[in-house]
Parts: sequence; structure tokens; C-alpha cells
Amino acid sequence: MAERASVTPLRRKPRPEPLPRQPPPQEPLWREVLGQRLRALRLDQRETLLETAARAGISPQYLSEVERGRKEPSSEMIAALAGALGTTLAELTEQLAGDLRRHQGIATSRASGPVMLALAA
Amino acid sequence: MAERASVTPLRRKPRPEPLPRQPPPQEPLWREVLGQRLRALRLDQRETLLETAARAGISPQYLSEVERGRKEPSSEMIAALAGALGTTLAELTEQLAGDLRRHQGIATSRASGPVMLALAA
Repeated sequence: MAERASVTPLRRKPRPEPLPRQPPPQEPLWREVLGQRLRALRLDQRETLLETAARAGISPQYLSEVERGRKEPSSEMIAALAGALGTTLAELTEQLAGDLRRHQGIATSRASGPVMLALAA
Repeated sequence: MAERASVTPLRRKPRPEPLPRQPPPQEPLWREVLGQRLRALRLDQRETLLETAARAGISPQYLSEVERGRKEPSSEMIAALAGALGTTLAELTEQLAGDLRRHQGIATSRASGPVMLALAA
């Protein structure tokens, strides 16, 4: 008790910051990252919306909305689009994991820029 | 012309078999593999449907249906569930890619069993 009282803390004990459980640094939504990847695959094959959509059995308008992350494609639709683009769900998911990893890297490096300087100041 | 006519083909030229563009060997649907992974993550944390669902802001019934691949969760829901399970979309997608890879391995080894023997016979 006495020992504690004689100590004048020079500065306040830092509040233990709750470690965020795997903070999602501005993660995109699933349909957004999926749409971007589907578009990239289609453009890699130099195909038009019309061509890919026809093979997947959907309208080019719908495919365009999926690619822009505006529509939530069903699992059956994802399978059809993967097939139409000559890939599999497994490969597509693998690529999406890579896309999200890269996105996370970008988000983290952005966060360590001005935000970290602000925290350090 | 004459040269061609003098040749009696011993056997018919084998029909070029169309190489299947990345055949999906009985791939599961996206929502099925997602549901299984979400359930595995929840059980890893020894959580009940009630606990995880409460943190994700959904009903345990709905979570149960998602886990069994019966409901197609929206992208917002996937993000909420990832957060409730202490993970990110990036990590979740990474795990799903692994799940699908393993599934593909199983499907391929199954296909090379009786099917390949039948083709060889």
C-alpha cells in the first residue's frame, strides 16, 4: 500500500488497447471482388459480355451487373460463369483469395501511411 | 491426288477428343463449401449456433440453414459471419480455396478409379 502511494507515476499507464480480432481493413464485399475477377477473366479471353453471357445462359445486362458487384449471383450462377470462362469454382476461389490478399496488403499499407503518422503525433 | 488414293488406312484416324476446358469434377456449390467452412470455424471455437448468430446479428435458424448450404447468404451476411467468427473475408476465402482443392483431389482420385478402368477396358 505505502509503496504504491510513494510512486508518482510520470505518465498514465497506457490503457490496454483491445487487440482487434483480425481487423478487416476496408475489405471489399464478396460480390465486388467476385465481379471484378469475373470481368478480368472475361477480358483476358478477349470476350464480350454477350459472348460470355450466352455461354453461361444469362443476359449480358445481368452479367454486367454481376461484374460491377451490383447483383449477388447465386451459387449456381457462379458455377455457370466459372464454366463459361473455362475455369472451376476451385480455381476461381483461389484467384479471389489472391485478390483479397492483395487488397488487404494495399489497405494495410494505406493504413500505415497518414493514419499511423497521426497516431504517432 | 493419286498418292492419297493408293493409301488404304489400316484404321480410322482417331477422332480428336475435345479436351474438356477444366472439367469441374463434381464441384460443390459455393454456398455448400462456404456453409461447411463456417460451421467448422464455429465448432473450432466451441460456439453454439445461438452465440455465433447473435454476434452476426442473425437468427440461429438462419445460420443453421447457411451452414447446411440451404440458404444463399448475401455478401453483407458473409462479412458479418466472418467478423462474428473472428476472421476476415480474405482468410475465409483462402480456407475455402483449400477446401475446394482438397475436394477436387478427392473427386479426381475417385474419377481415376472405376471410371478410368472402364475407359481402359
